[in-house]
Amino acid sequence: MNQITGPTGEEPLAVDDLDAFKQAFRRHAAGVAAVTSLDPQGKPVGFTATSLASLAAVPPMATFNMSQVASAYPAMTVGNHVAIHMLGPRSRHIAEKLAADHDVRFAGDHWTPGPHGLPILSDVTAWMVGTVLEVHPVHNNAVIVVQIETGALGPEDEALLYHERSYMKPGAIDA
Amino acid sequence: MNQITGPTGEEPLAVDDLDAFKQAFRRHAAGVAAVTSLDPQGKPVGFTATSLASLAAVPPMATFNMSQVASAYPAMTVGNHVAIHMLGPRSRHIAEKLAADHDVRFAGDHWTPGPHGLPILSDVTAWMVGTVLEVHPVHNNAVIVVQIETGALGPEDEALLYHERSYMKPGAIDA
Repeated sequence: MNQITGPTGEEPLAVDDLDAFKQAFRRHAAGVAAVTSLDPQGKPVGFTATSLASLAAVPPMATFNMSQVASAYPAMTVGNHVAIHMLGPRSRHIAEKLAADHDVRFAGDHWTPGPHGLPILSDVTAWMVGTVLEVHPVHNNAVIVVQIETGALGPEDEALLYHERSYMKPGAIDA
Repeated sequence: MNQITGPTGEEPLAVDDLDAFKQAFRRHAAGVAAVTSLDPQGKPVGFTATSLASLAAVPPMATFNMSQVASAYPAMTVGNHVAIHMLGPRSRHIAEKLAADHDVRFAGDHWTPGPHGLPILSDVTAWMVGTVLEVHPVHNNAVIVVQIETGALGPEDEALLYHERSYMKPGAIDA
């Protein structure tokens, strides 16, 4: 393990230490999305994701990362469908619900069945439905590549962020 | 192409249309990072990334997405080293510099050589150095998986966001 001091005297960071790695990523803010799908038994599964990223616009593709022990992971098979939802401060309760115990994530009226029977979450700022194109397991986690096929915009809202262990929203730099 | 109207009367979104896909992702805010490396000729390359995501903490791994036509893509070979920098509002000029024409991205004194000769950018809130573990080409783009080996924290700053085509920072939801 090397500790390296940066060019301008930064505090050294031991990044093979779990806390130190998390500390670095805590300086990075992330948008909050929710991914839902149906597992092989047809049961709704889903989770709150801070790793959603655009991969390409033509064809429209997105990626997210997840743990292989997540309750939604059995749904992530090539060709299966997923719904990706963009969340705003108004749908913060959805983010909290989908981050709770997996048994209660779909208990309630915060979703309705949509295309392919997928759970479509209410009050989201946008949702997209696509097909799992690639699954890349890496150690105990996986990168999921989704090709987007359709979707809809929801009511306008600001964007929901997760940063410093809190839900936040974007603000002006000079404010 | 199907247009689907959502359960609560959302505006239909034709997501195989480039603008519509971008419109959905414009409702998603993203943290801003900068990735640097050395290309096969040893020349500094890099770019501003809004796709940086944590993949795992043990071992510490991160992912980002990029175009295969990016000037930095030739550096993304398994085993090569990359530096990933977290940016704050104070280092917004770095984000702009690394998003400018690739010929001028390293013209200036905004970086110094670091571990493995990698360009380490100044005034960032954190930087991490790692090894390219996997490269997954998807159409004209690619998902890059990096295993982090070391790094340092920089001066404290808020997190830099890119949202609605502007640089922003996180703010309180109830503010």
